[in-house]
Amino acid sequence: MNITHAYAAQDAKSKLAPFEYQPRELREHDVQIEVMYCGVCHSDLHQARNEWKNTVFPVVPGHEIVGRVTAVGGHTHKYKVGDIVGVGCLVDSCRECDSCKEDLEQYCENGFTGTYNGQDRVTGEITYGGYSTQVIVNEDFVLRIPENLDPAGAAPLLCAGITTFSPLHHWKVGPGKKVGIVGLGGLGHMGVKIAHAMGAHVVLFTTSPSKIEDGKRLGADEVVISKDAEQMAQHTNTFDFILNTVAAQHDLDQFITLLRRDGTMTLVGVPEHSHPSPQVFNLIFKRRSIAGSLIGGIKETQEMLDFCGKHNLTSDIEMIKMDEINEAYERMLKSDVKYRFVIDIDTLRAAG
Amino acid sequence: MNITHAYAAQDAKSKLAPFEYQPRELREHDVQIEVMYCGVCHSDLHQARNEWKNTVFPVVPGHEIVGRVTAVGGHTHKYKVGDIVGVGCLVDSCRECDSCKEDLEQYCENGFTGTYNGQDRVTGEITYGGYSTQVIVNEDFVLRIPENLDPAGAAPLLCAGITTFSPLHHWKVGPGKKVGIVGLGGLGHMGVKIAHAMGAHVVLFTTSPSKIEDGKRLGADEVVISKDAEQMAQHTNTFDFILNTVAAQHDLDQFITLLRRDGTMTLVGVPEHSHPSPQVFNLIFKRRSIAGSLIGGIKETQEMLDFCGKHNLTSDIEMIKMDEINEAYERMLKSDVKYRFVIDIDTLRAAG
Repeated sequence: MNITHAYAAQDAKSKLAPFEYQPRELREHDVQIEVMYCGVCHSDLHQARNEWKNTVFPVVPGHEIVGRVTAVGGHTHKYKVGDIVGVGCLVDSCRECDSCKEDLEQYCENGFTGTYNGQDRVTGEITYGGYSTQVIVNEDFVLRIPENLDPAGAAPLLCAGITTFSPLHHWKVGPGKKVGIVGLGGLGHMGVKIAHAMGAHVVLFTTSPSKIEDGKRLGADEVVISKDAEQMAQHTNTFDFILNTVAAQHDLDQFITLLRRDGTMTLVGVPEHSHPSPQVFNLIFKRRSIAGSLIGGIKETQEMLDFCGKHNLTSDIEMIKMDEINEAYERMLKSDVKYRFVIDIDTLRAAG
Repeated sequence: MNITHAYAAQDAKSKLAPFEYQPRELREHDVQIEVMYCGVCHSDLHQARNEWKNTVFPVVPGHEIVGRVTAVGGHTHKYKVGDIVGVGCLVDSCRECDSCKEDLEQYCENGFTGTYNGQDRVTGEITYGGYSTQVIVNEDFVLRIPENLDPAGAAPLLCAGITTFSPLHHWKVGPGKKVGIVGLGGLGHMGVKIAHAMGAHVVLFTTSPSKIEDGKRLGADEVVISKDAEQMAQHTNTFDFILNTVAAQHDLDQFITLLRRDGTMTLVGVPEHSHPSPQVFNLIFKRRSIAGSLIGGIKETQEMLDFCGKHNLTSDIEMIKMDEINEAYERMLKSDVKYRFVIDIDTLRAAG
């Protein structure tokens, strides 16, 4: 097999730098993918810097992958050479537990295989992600990218898209529902677009008055400045569902009190330090819930992509070259991106 | 009308003592009830001592009332003189909001009228509860007590019973479901009985090894000592639903991690000081929820009573005389009751 060119972190303190590796052999059900674009997720930075204390170095990040099929294994039936496909956060799972059987591989009881920093279930090798010229993935974990979507803008759908689509879908967001999206970053801006396309009345919560206009352009019916107690109070007891995309520590009660009876606020960000403890009486007096949600299963990810194809939804992106990744990480830490960096992997191929 | 004899607290620092009042006139849809038994709920103590900072004194507590109908208003059709009836935590609501229209008066958007320390919607007078020889209640908020149930043991069903039945019912507990009940007090012991009667596999969590035997007698299939980390770990990811009846501040994560994917833990107790903040990743990685639940609506309370009648379920009680109430409060603070005090109101009538 041909050598794969990539960018890797060699340890938690080092910047990402060029790296080469020998990919695994193409197995019977595998798809070989020439990576075209890879989105830059905040998890990539967490893992490159070992902030979750589980990184195996060297690590090649990247789980918002769009590319072109260049070869398929002997028993691969779902894809053929030339197809435009995607790979998200997982590349395998046990396929036997209740969650896998219910198409919820992200909750695999035996642990799904991460697209990077995971462990291949056959060879035990550590998986390498999409900051690479190519990836090899079992066909069951490869997604079809709708033809009408810009492939660069579609890349972030594989993580930011499904992470927001899945809870919006699971908690039955749609026409007649009032839905809040907390935070306008990579996840939040997809949440606004998707909830709007689902037909809900969408309210964006942000701390930045500068984001009002953009929020409305992206599909929010209203934008509320969450620091303004008076504006917030006007929405008390009115939301069917709130998707909270903010990972930074913050007061959850200010949003919980905006839920109607039986409303749910679902968190998709893990804070480094716990949020202040929510008040139990805010849950009890309206039978409200706080929940969490993790990316989505493969079947639902395909549904999300098809939904985005139908509604012509992609991420708002800023394209970067591979060698701009370290600078992009620094800008991401300052939320200086609208709304997702996507690496043009041709710039890695040219360098290699 | 005849004078009503009662026990009231005159201020937050005083013990309960004899008190007399003139009841309101019987209105067209009212039922006059000679109180036979009244359960003693922890809320009674909170309100008598103004611990929720909203008590109007004098306060006559008591919202687990069973009695006999002695008179009815001119347009009262649901009950007749001689019927054995119950009154729970609410005696009126706006009847117009979405929650009231959906038979969820406990979540009335305009605030339900509490059985005591509430405000009558017609006269504006403060309501007096079941530590009284009689109460007058609108027929729509009066419940029918199944004939086969002991009326003293049935009294706690009006609050402890419905507070546990409602979430167990709402979250669809039944055969094939593994259900946890946290805490074996007035609420918890009813939770164990009801969940068992619903056909679930019931696990009681308690901190007291002395309660193991009693937990099993009440219907628990297993009793787990929640301080024993090893015992707890054996139940990781296995519960469909956990009903947490403990109001004292405690670690929620030790129970959240026992929920399966999509499991919910519902809290029915409000702690004086917040619980430590739960870990968000425990919610995210299994799409788990934390929720709250408040008593139940009138329709559901009747369903609960009928269910208890069918399964012959009542509370385990310790009967007291009216003049033993202050001592009972002190014992309740030490959890020294199995599992609910019930006042024999005849002892008040005799004294009066």
